[in-house]
Amino acid sequence: MRIGGVLNILGKLLLLLSLFLLTPIPFSLYFEDGMVKMFLLCSVLGAVMGGSLLAIFAPEEDLGYRDGFAVVVFSWLGLALLGSLPYVFCGAMPSFIDAFFESMSGFTTTGSTILSEVEILPESVLFWRSTTHWLGGMGIIVLSLAILPLLGVGGMQLFQAEMPGPTKDRLAPRIQDTARILWVVYFAFTLVQTMLMMLGGMSFFDAICHAFATLATGGFSTHTASAGHWQSAYIEYVIILFMFLAGINFSLHYRAFSQRSLKPYLNNEEFRFYMIIIGLAAGAILIANMGHKVYTAFGDNLRDTLFQVVAMITTTGFGTADFDQWPSVTKVIIVFLMFIGGCAGSTGGGIKVVRFLLFFKYARLQLRSLIHPRAVGAIKLGNQKVPKEVMISILGFFALYVAFFLAASLLVTSMGVDIVTGMTSVIATLNNIGPGLAEVGPSRNFGDLPQAAKVVLSFCMLAGRLELYTVAVLLTPDFWKMARKPIWRWELKKEGQARE
Amino acid sequence: MRIGGVLNILGKLLLLLSLFLLTPIPFSLYFEDGMVKMFLLCSVLGAVMGGSLLAIFAPEEDLGYRDGFAVVVFSWLGLALLGSLPYVFCGAMPSFIDAFFESMSGFTTTGSTILSEVEILPESVLFWRSTTHWLGGMGIIVLSLAILPLLGVGGMQLFQAEMPGPTKDRLAPRIQDTARILWVVYFAFTLVQTMLMMLGGMSFFDAICHAFATLATGGFSTHTASAGHWQSAYIEYVIILFMFLAGINFSLHYRAFSQRSLKPYLNNEEFRFYMIIIGLAAGAILIANMGHKVYTAFGDNLRDTLFQVVAMITTTGFGTADFDQWPSVTKVIIVFLMFIGGCAGSTGGGIKVVRFLLFFKYARLQLRSLIHPRAVGAIKLGNQKVPKEVMISILGFFALYVAFFLAASLLVTSMGVDIVTGMTSVIATLNNIGPGLAEVGPSRNFGDLPQAAKVVLSFCMLAGRLELYTVAVLLTPDFWKMARKPIWRWELKKEGQARE
Repeated sequence: MRIGGVLNILGKLLLLLSLFLLTPIPFSLYFEDGMVKMFLLCSVLGAVMGGSLLAIFAPEEDLGYRDGFAVVVFSWLGLALLGSLPYVFCGAMPSFIDAFFESMSGFTTTGSTILSEVEILPESVLFWRSTTHWLGGMGIIVLSLAILPLLGVGGMQLFQAEMPGPTKDRLAPRIQDTARILWVVYFAFTLVQTMLMMLGGMSFFDAICHAFATLATGGFSTHTASAGHWQSAYIEYVIILFMFLAGINFSLHYRAFSQRSLKPYLNNEEFRFYMIIIGLAAGAILIANMGHKVYTAFGDNLRDTLFQVVAMITTTGFGTADFDQWPSVTKVIIVFLMFIGGCAGSTGGGIKVVRFLLFFKYARLQLRSLIHPRAVGAIKLGNQKVPKEVMISILGFFALYVAFFLAASLLVTSMGVDIVTGMTSVIATLNNIGPGLAEVGPSRNFGDLPQAAKVVLSFCMLAGRLELYTVAVLLTPDFWKMARKPIWRWELKKEGQARE
Repeated sequence: MRIGGVLNILGKLLLLLSLFLLTPIPFSLYFEDGMVKMFLLCSVLGAVMGGSLLAIFAPEEDLGYRDGFAVVVFSWLGLALLGSLPYVFCGAMPSFIDAFFESMSGFTTTGSTILSEVEILPESVLFWRSTTHWLGGMGIIVLSLAILPLLGVGGMQLFQAEMPGPTKDRLAPRIQDTARILWVVYFAFTLVQTMLMMLGGMSFFDAICHAFATLATGGFSTHTASAGHWQSAYIEYVIILFMFLAGINFSLHYRAFSQRSLKPYLNNEEFRFYMIIIGLAAGAILIANMGHKVYTAFGDNLRDTLFQVVAMITTTGFGTADFDQWPSVTKVIIVFLMFIGGCAGSTGGGIKVVRFLLFFKYARLQLRSLIHPRAVGAIKLGNQKVPKEVMISILGFFALYVAFFLAASLLVTSMGVDIVTGMTSVIATLNNIGPGLAEVGPSRNFGDLPQAAKVVLSFCMLAGRLELYTVAVLLTPDFWKMARKPIWRWELKKEGQARE
């Protein structure tokens, strides 16, 4: 590994983040919350950290694909560390670990919080909190659509051929082009949602914070009552719409925009499956709630149901209804939705719709081959045949998922956390959802967990967000053994050819 | 499908079962519980049912491999139906569905019960209840080591080459030879365990009933307090030993006996992984219990821990300790053990050790290939290379597992069962364990569930026991479409050649 080149990139990202650390200042001035100097200090500290890295380590032109793993993991860690400073310096967080947890929860677009009342944070720090979501969401789009496919990780390797931007090129230009194209969509959505919410009576501050949290499928709110605070059907439907959009592959949005047509969505099998799941889940919950007379008005039932289904499948984790009062069959549905997650290439977390789609397609093929043993079957996604390697890589993903889930659950419960809290806190962070059940349920928070458990859960957020493989590779002794061999430049060229 | 040939086999099995229905009579005479006439009636009914099928349907010499799916599923269903008659006629079960649930729980070696106090059953009926376990266990050994591999289903296709008995032959002789060899081991274990338990002070009746339930990894006891009833360390260790043995591939036992050596065990990778899991789980629970001072004596801790770990991984489900008082980390371990299950070719249920072994081997290989992209890796089990098809079939198994789990959980909770009871009752039956949590926990029973939920759970027991694929194939419309085509004889010969 070329650690120098990796740290150089981290330095650039820290410099960039130190600029973003200035954006809460106008809010601090407007709300007169006295945080101007604090953010200036954080920004300067970030600039010093980033600048030192840039001064010490020279850029590497030819970073290898293997260095990509280190770039991705170190970037998220470094940004979360710098991003936790405002929480520490504003005095609202009892410890650095709490601040780091909150910051990691932001940058991984998870939305778990250690705060029992978010209103205790100054407005400018609340804005910063939402900004970490938004930046994390930007990072995820580029990661899942440009970087991970090149590393051979994540559901998106399937769509290589369909990706925007030039393909026969080196890492950096490819990523920049893809990022530019997709961020235009992300910016546009943010702008439109902010305006729509302001039309519904939200202040600019609340609107932009919620737009940041929605498009990133994060879930941080400026109010403890979350999106339910406004008691407004209009605002809730706007949030439902944009959560739904944020859970879709962003390269589909780009193509739909540039072709001015809905066809790119309708032709995409993952999108159709995403729609089917949402439709079936919402339909079943609607009927169950009607059967148990949970709501007197059908409109309330419809809105709360749609909100909950979309908030869960996209792993946003916003809350409006207290679904503890819903019949138990709806909770089973919600639990399953928590694992599914968004489409590949969206800002949503979880296991991803495309993996489930291929998973069940495979089971059907397998059954058919037991009945017609000589029939030769292949799994297709759209018009593309899915190679066996991709099918097995899904198996590998599930294996890693189980391994992380088991290890984290054992660690958290061994610290004295009860089993439901412990296991659902792991599920909520590994899938980047936000709230779990019991002690970490929607009306509770992660603040009372042992400090060591918060560290483990921060790690779960990171691992889940980076599609497990990325983090798991860095945990392999082999990866670090390779790092000592000085043959990278030569190897890279060979690999670059082999992979393109 | 040759439905006639299938029903002819079912007729033979029913006749055989009607003979076994006579075995409780000596116990009825000894205990004077007045069930002699009842068992005679059941036996005659079984003989009439079986005889009629034999009279109507002629045997088929060349049953196709596809007919095997129907034979397996219809046999288990038919035997469970006939086996439920004693529960109905003895008057202890409130409804036929309860009796069928109990009978299916017996034949699938699950051990879930609808009885709050098992002592209300007459002794001879208790003996019958344990006998269903034992017969189910015999069926499973033949199924998993002789029939399923021929159908291309289940973890055992891996061991084709290592199996005892002639290989280049038709279905029936092959199965008979394999069965004869393995049943000798099963008989021997049952005999030895019965004698060892009698040496510990158990009556012949209790000893044989518990030996039946142990070797089948079933879990029915003759006392409500289960194996804890005797408060005897000796008896508990004997049960631990035989549960452990019952969770091992029976073809390993056969080879170890015939070679008079332990090498067949030690050379088997699945066995070593089974040992490692048991060792790690028991070690972790021991330490956690010591840390929380749950036990004053180390010996009690060791015995209860070993008992619980082996009872769970083998899916026997016997209980001695009330592990609700254990620290929460031990419960996470126990939950994971519930899913793992025994080795392939054992009487244990669950997902099977070999699937988890390959699952994690694959994840390791995948990580390595991300670091060394040009390295060509293959997964080996022992000295055999595991084909890609087998790896993908594991993916298919997990997909079916999730599908059954989701469907059954939705059905059960939609009947008003709470979420923890509903989901753990599905886990307990799909993995053939026995008790779940909450309303169906170790000190409770399945009796209070809605009748329709008992039907769904009976189906889960059957599906889990028959490795999901077998039952899923019969649920496919394709299977029944094929059944109408009269081209079987010709197809069979072709297939027989192709598959051997």
